[in-house]
Amino acid sequence: MSRFFSDKYSSLKPYVPGEQPKEMIYIKLNTNESPFPPSKKAIELATAEAAALNLYPDPTCEKLRLAAAAALNISSDKIIFTNGSDDILNFAFMAFCSPVAPAVFPDITYGFYPVFAALNNIKTIVVPLKSDFTIDIDGLKKAKGTIFLANPNAPTGIALTRSEIEGIVKADRNRLVVVDEAYVDFGAESCISLTDSYDNILVVQTFSKSRSMAGARLGYAVGCKELIADLETIRYSTNPYNINRMTMAAGIGALFDEKYFKDNISEIISTREYVVEELKKMGMNVLPSKANFVFASSSRLSGETIYKELKKRGVLVRYFSVERTREYNRITIGSRKQMEIFIKVIKDILEEQK
Amino acid sequence: MSRFFSDKYSSLKPYVPGEQPKEMIYIKLNTNESPFPPSKKAIELATAEAAALNLYPDPTCEKLRLAAAAALNISSDKIIFTNGSDDILNFAFMAFCSPVAPAVFPDITYGFYPVFAALNNIKTIVVPLKSDFTIDIDGLKKAKGTIFLANPNAPTGIALTRSEIEGIVKADRNRLVVVDEAYVDFGAESCISLTDSYDNILVVQTFSKSRSMAGARLGYAVGCKELIADLETIRYSTNPYNINRMTMAAGIGALFDEKYFKDNISEIISTREYVVEELKKMGMNVLPSKANFVFASSSRLSGETIYKELKKRGVLVRYFSVERTREYNRITIGSRKQMEIFIKVIKDILEEQK
Repeated sequence: MSRFFSDKYSSLKPYVPGEQPKEMIYIKLNTNESPFPPSKKAIELATAEAAALNLYPDPTCEKLRLAAAAALNISSDKIIFTNGSDDILNFAFMAFCSPVAPAVFPDITYGFYPVFAALNNIKTIVVPLKSDFTIDIDGLKKAKGTIFLANPNAPTGIALTRSEIEGIVKADRNRLVVVDEAYVDFGAESCISLTDSYDNILVVQTFSKSRSMAGARLGYAVGCKELIADLETIRYSTNPYNINRMTMAAGIGALFDEKYFKDNISEIISTREYVVEELKKMGMNVLPSKANFVFASSSRLSGETIYKELKKRGVLVRYFSVERTREYNRITIGSRKQMEIFIKVIKDILEEQK
Repeated sequence: MSRFFSDKYSSLKPYVPGEQPKEMIYIKLNTNESPFPPSKKAIELATAEAAALNLYPDPTCEKLRLAAAAALNISSDKIIFTNGSDDILNFAFMAFCSPVAPAVFPDITYGFYPVFAALNNIKTIVVPLKSDFTIDIDGLKKAKGTIFLANPNAPTGIALTRSEIEGIVKADRNRLVVVDEAYVDFGAESCISLTDSYDNILVVQTFSKSRSMAGARLGYAVGCKELIADLETIRYSTNPYNINRMTMAAGIGALFDEKYFKDNISEIISTREYVVEELKKMGMNVLPSKANFVFASSSRLSGETIYKELKKRGVLVRYFSVERTREYNRITIGSRKQMEIFIKVIKDILEEQK
């Protein structure tokens, strides 16, 4: 730390992204990336932009907003794009929390929420998941503040239904509910349609997972136009040209290629069901996932041991050492081939313990 | 504004980027873009990354940092990369200003500084430029706070020498000086070498202008490793994957192509000298520029009239309506051909007034 660093941030503990090891090639099942390349149309349009990089991107993201609005069947003033959905989440913590609206979220959820709260000096109310790792809906309803709800939740993969979320939104029309739908395309119900009826819901999505574009950085939020205008005020006060030309073009390309998107999702879901079945056959406990990952534990080996043994054998998964999740590992659903190897390797590890 | 928007930001006035009109093709001399495409090597490497966009970029930017460190002859822990240099500047306002260290900058400078200050609730001390639009060095030295100094300054184009800036840095070793060198490559002296001797200087640069990559979004800062670590703390608490794979690759490509970079700069400088000479021949007042733009006024026509007349004839320049600069326009140096047209057009406009 330098002697110039503001006291405000001196005790800030940054988010720790999943490992990106460079020393060897792993089967990487630790950061919920898609095993499929982006759509050919996305590659084609991104590539075509490279020669025009001397010119600034369109700060209004007009073409991309129009393409997304058409795909999502919403009006284009109900959507804002950012440099990955982490940017949107940060903007939402800035814009919609205050001393009278602390941030409310579960104890086990996306690990960046407490970091955004700390960064922006926002008080938090933590509502623990129930013992079966499901969301405590009544607990959330009772807490006074802006709710941040990952649906499906991470790292559990468990989803609420749209009507359960509508229940939370309706319970208090004077509180905002931010629904983080990073993983929604893998089997959960999106709440985008609720943004027509309620002005107190903001839905956040990303091109990182289901559209195979984690490396491009493209996220967005959908809500009533006043909420979007507030987020635009923040965006234009931090970095108006936040999305580069190539990513903007790739996003448009991906939206044009709906079949590829749907096919990849089907493939991930069927591979996930295969993985769940195989892990259960080995006696592992697997939470019911609607995401592109599963969260699993074994009574035979600790979460940390499984993580380390897998890593030794060339498979990376994500381990969270905090109390409630220390027996679990979060395993990204890769390609069918990757997951067959994973199943073989974890079987070996468990067999050795017998 | 929604009813959920935090009071903290309710009076925030966002930055207004230069127009990006879509209704017709202009000769665009209003946002200081390069008229040259990015390096072929940059295009080649960016394009090669498109197929791997399903994977996250390296959050540590290791290869890019190593390439830049080699090019700048510094160690790789002295540099941080962000999604354009606006991100770095915002991070620096966050990290290095506080109630005891307000932000200090000239009245006429990059228009985003007051926005960053307002966004982060930071007090400002404004030190007016002298009547000839040069920096009031003594005034800056006397002000207590973190100095933000664009060098060359924008929109004037006037530069301080490295030794003048060293004088400011030396005058108070307990205050940080942030030197924003967005335009330094067009003829001013960089202060990067001062970061070896002083821990109270941070130098910010960008690939947007001299490396023809405004559309890719790539900025960086160089300073002692403690300052860089502070900025990394902020970066990892907002958006660790802030630079997409294609931009990172393009940056490496651009750094490999030093000859193209140098040739383009020479061309811009010689075109600038041509423009200055022609404008002076017409009796215009042109400030001495070390940037890829000139700031010019005429005693015959107001700044606003010149701006509007140029726009009517298909040439866009940037007009800032505040009191001290309302007689001036900022004119980006485009290609020789563009500038010949510009000179012809402005000559016509002025002739018509005779």
